[in-house]
Amino acid sequence: MCVTRGYAPPGNNLCCATKIRIAGLSKCVRHTYSPTLRTLSTSTPLCQGIPGSVWKLGRLNHIAIAVPDMEKATALYRDVLGAQVSDKVPLPEHGVYTVFVELGNTKLELLHPLGEKSPITGFLQKNKSGGMHHICIEVDDISVAIVDLKARNIRTLSAEPRIGAHGKPVMFLHPKDCDGVLVELEQA
Amino acid sequence: MCVTRGYAPPGNNLCCATKIRIAGLSKCVRHTYSPTLRTLSTSTPLCQGIPGSVWKLGRLNHIAIAVPDMEKATALYRDVLGAQVSDKVPLPEHGVYTVFVELGNTKLELLHPLGEKSPITGFLQKNKSGGMHHICIEVDDISVAIVDLKARNIRTLSAEPRIGAHGKPVMFLHPKDCDGVLVELEQA
Repeated sequence: MCVTRGYAPPGNNLCCATKIRIAGLSKCVRHTYSPTLRTLSTSTPLCQGIPGSVWKLGRLNHIAIAVPDMEKATALYRDVLGAQVSDKVPLPEHGVYTVFVELGNTKLELLHPLGEKSPITGFLQKNKSGGMHHICIEVDDISVAIVDLKARNIRTLSAEPRIGAHGKPVMFLHPKDCDGVLVELEQA
Repeated sequence: MCVTRGYAPPGNNLCCATKIRIAGLSKCVRHTYSPTLRTLSTSTPLCQGIPGSVWKLGRLNHIAIAVPDMEKATALYRDVLGAQVSDKVPLPEHGVYTVFVELGNTKLELLHPLGEKSPITGFLQKNKSGGMHHICIEVDDISVAIVDLKARNIRTLSAEPRIGAHGKPVMFLHPKDCDGVLVELEQA
């Protein structure tokens, strides 16, 4: 199906140099933001991709599910549903244990709190049985994507990217700006 | 990573003939359920798949997101994040409008209520900004999978499969039995 696009992003030409610090690593990114980044003529069909875009949304990397009992959840996917699952890995810098469930085209990431300041403790207090916590979508250039999205009034949960569970830069977008969904962007 | 499996399902040998009615279509499925369906020796590595299993979990078909404003949500994914999106399609038999967002390896399914008895109206009353509603995973034989899962005390939201948004039989598993996640199984 073809759709046409005629979105005009908020703000005008914006030239900036963004310094992104990731786990002690400083990286200078200089680029020019302009409304043409995601603005196409309304007569341009979307079917062939997004000509003129300087960053691209990629594949779904994973769906994260917060679980109150990691062993029980792992057993559900491994023993009842028959999926391949990873070992349980502690990520103290993120305050979670993770188990990845392979689904062929993508993964589920089971999360359980690690430590007293785990970012998912509050979520599990509100959702006693567990629940879907976030989705992670890959992008081909996270630094350019973040500048572009901020210019479009999409808020992020931190000022700069962090290193995620796969050792790559990640950034969370505010759920209030994404239909109530916590969206993680990950460098592909 | 290799893991081993030694799960013994609840119940013993169970021989049954299951009649599944789907949108007026009756289909007889005769099969034998036995504990070997998902029981392997603890020395059997999972890396090579699930030998002896009579049904298989497949790929993630989609993540469904309930949204309070379909036009705004569609614009976010199409115009801000640059994804390909489908037309808005009414599915009166399911009480929803749908828009599919292509992510390369899978899809997002945006849902908005259609009619007074929409099944997602209550969800949106509790989640004003919207939120993740369910995930849909494909299976290679939904009728066998359902019999197997019911024998393992995984509850379903209906007695029999229905025809889903893609015209294929689907069945929802109870979120209380799936770590708080509403899981839809779809015939591949």
